[in-house]
Amino acid sequence: MTEFGFIDKIASMCRSLPDNGWEGIGDDCAVLLSGDRATVVSCDMLVEGVHFLRHAAPAHIIGRKALAVNLSDIAAMGARPTAALLSIALPDDAAGAWAEEFMAGFTQMASEHGTALIGGDTTASKQGVSISVTVIGTAPAANIKRRSDARAGDIVAVTGMLGESGAGLQQILSGRCDTPAAHAHMNPAPHTAEGEWLGSRREVHAMMDISDGIASDLRHIMERSGVGADIDTEHVPAFDDLRTALCAGEDYKLLLTARADRFGLLAADFEARFRRPLYKIGHITAQAGLLRWLRGGTPEDVDFRGFVHF
Amino acid sequence: MTEFGFIDKIASMCRSLPDNGWEGIGDDCAVLLSGDRATVVSCDMLVEGVHFLRHAAPAHIIGRKALAVNLSDIAAMGARPTAALLSIALPDDAAGAWAEEFMAGFTQMASEHGTALIGGDTTASKQGVSISVTVIGTAPAANIKRRSDARAGDIVAVTGMLGESGAGLQQILSGRCDTPAAHAHMNPAPHTAEGEWLGSRREVHAMMDISDGIASDLRHIMERSGVGADIDTEHVPAFDDLRTALCAGEDYKLLLTARADRFGLLAADFEARFRRPLYKIGHITAQAGLLRWLRGGTPEDVDFRGFVHF
Repeated sequence: MTEFGFIDKIASMCRSLPDNGWEGIGDDCAVLLSGDRATVVSCDMLVEGVHFLRHAAPAHIIGRKALAVNLSDIAAMGARPTAALLSIALPDDAAGAWAEEFMAGFTQMASEHGTALIGGDTTASKQGVSISVTVIGTAPAANIKRRSDARAGDIVAVTGMLGESGAGLQQILSGRCDTPAAHAHMNPAPHTAEGEWLGSRREVHAMMDISDGIASDLRHIMERSGVGADIDTEHVPAFDDLRTALCAGEDYKLLLTARADRFGLLAADFEARFRRPLYKIGHITAQAGLLRWLRGGTPEDVDFRGFVHF
Repeated sequence: MTEFGFIDKIASMCRSLPDNGWEGIGDDCAVLLSGDRATVVSCDMLVEGVHFLRHAAPAHIIGRKALAVNLSDIAAMGARPTAALLSIALPDDAAGAWAEEFMAGFTQMASEHGTALIGGDTTASKQGVSISVTVIGTAPAANIKRRSDARAGDIVAVTGMLGESGAGLQQILSGRCDTPAAHAHMNPAPHTAEGEWLGSRREVHAMMDISDGIASDLRHIMERSGVGADIDTEHVPAFDDLRTALCAGEDYKLLLTARADRFGLLAADFEARFRRPLYKIGHITAQAGLLRWLRGGTPEDVDFRGFVHF
């Protein structure tokens, strides 16, 4: 069973339960609207041997990343992260110095993004470190961005270069761990300020974070919104080669769609605020489920697929 | 380093971060007050080989228990559980039927307690199943019960028999898995209705759930409230022997303190509502840190200690 197969099963089980006002599974976070405020919640798990190797990355880097990937989910909703909970299972040989260094990195990332650490659980482990992080965020209800709100004619944009993390992973696997790209892979910088700012802009329609590569992630927006997309591959801000930019995971930039007639103003304001461009890479089409890769305006016969974690 | 040693370190790191309105670590849940409403959040981790053995308990029982222990934390605050998030790491040999049966148990427990499943994460594992559950609850702000609100003169009470889970564990370890006590150990019934009801009663001061045995848990109330306690051991509703009732973990009943002059009415109303007694087991004293075990009103020279998980 793939990760998505099991998630589908869980989602179907969820539908048999009361929702208590929470929106169903399908976005980067669960959402609860209460009056004019929204609460968003996300959780992620990192497992030794699957998501990290203890000998390959310093503990404080793993601590930073464990929180960063969840902060990115909050940013993807247009919300501001306010609080985190950490559960960690530690084998004997990680319960001392390793755990303290992990916590130092986790706390540093929390401090950089103004996030409280409000609770959690620690336990022994017989076999390897397991980490689960839950992050809670808040936003005005009107700011919440969902995958389901892309409209035909929208511009598709991303908030940063793509493929640096993927290139870094390739370098790490070939033994070069001290490059800028390797650092970017190990120590992602979630776009929390960008996400909250984009949340406040009415011309932004759909948004999500780029965790599996846009070749995969964009399909979630297409599916949830019932639309298609044309991507101009020569406009994709690729760190290195195009395939890595589109298909490698863990960039943790934001992918969004926005009203075409307001995009120029949005991009200018974004650049004034963040001193970096908002990259326009294509547009949303009415052809549900059709994702085309264009070069010079002409569809190319290529098959890019995103990264599958499971 | 013990679990509490590491938690102390985490708590000290937490204090260097903004709190964003959340109350600090020290109760069964983190608490956020917002106007006249409170949000409470708790998370717990269960690890194969530490908290459960996959061959020793059916997967649906593990699914039920993974949620039950968190529901108990919400109940301990006087709140009502509304939503859960589940992160689970699955090795190949658990990703199929085992995972489905686990989810069936988890969903059944959620349904019995009116809790939504709003998100989570699934991932592969190289080594054993790891489960992390986060539960969110809600209550009128005035209903929230904390460990720090016990007052000298309060009655100490518990919402059910103690030691059944501990007796059940002993029976399981000696090969008798089909007894009522073994069933109670594997399949705890969190006192969610009792917790929400007690939350609404002003005469209830401090409350927590009994996860490590009252010999240990009561010390948390004493420490946070700056009080002592005298426990009448002959009034403890022990399932079997007294030591197991006081020291064995995982009963998941509620431990509370309440105004002495209103306790009779509270207990009568509790019994009318739940058709079970609210057991008075002692009272809170002004002698900070002094826990005494009385028999016939006389302190006994015994040293009961709670269960240490780590």
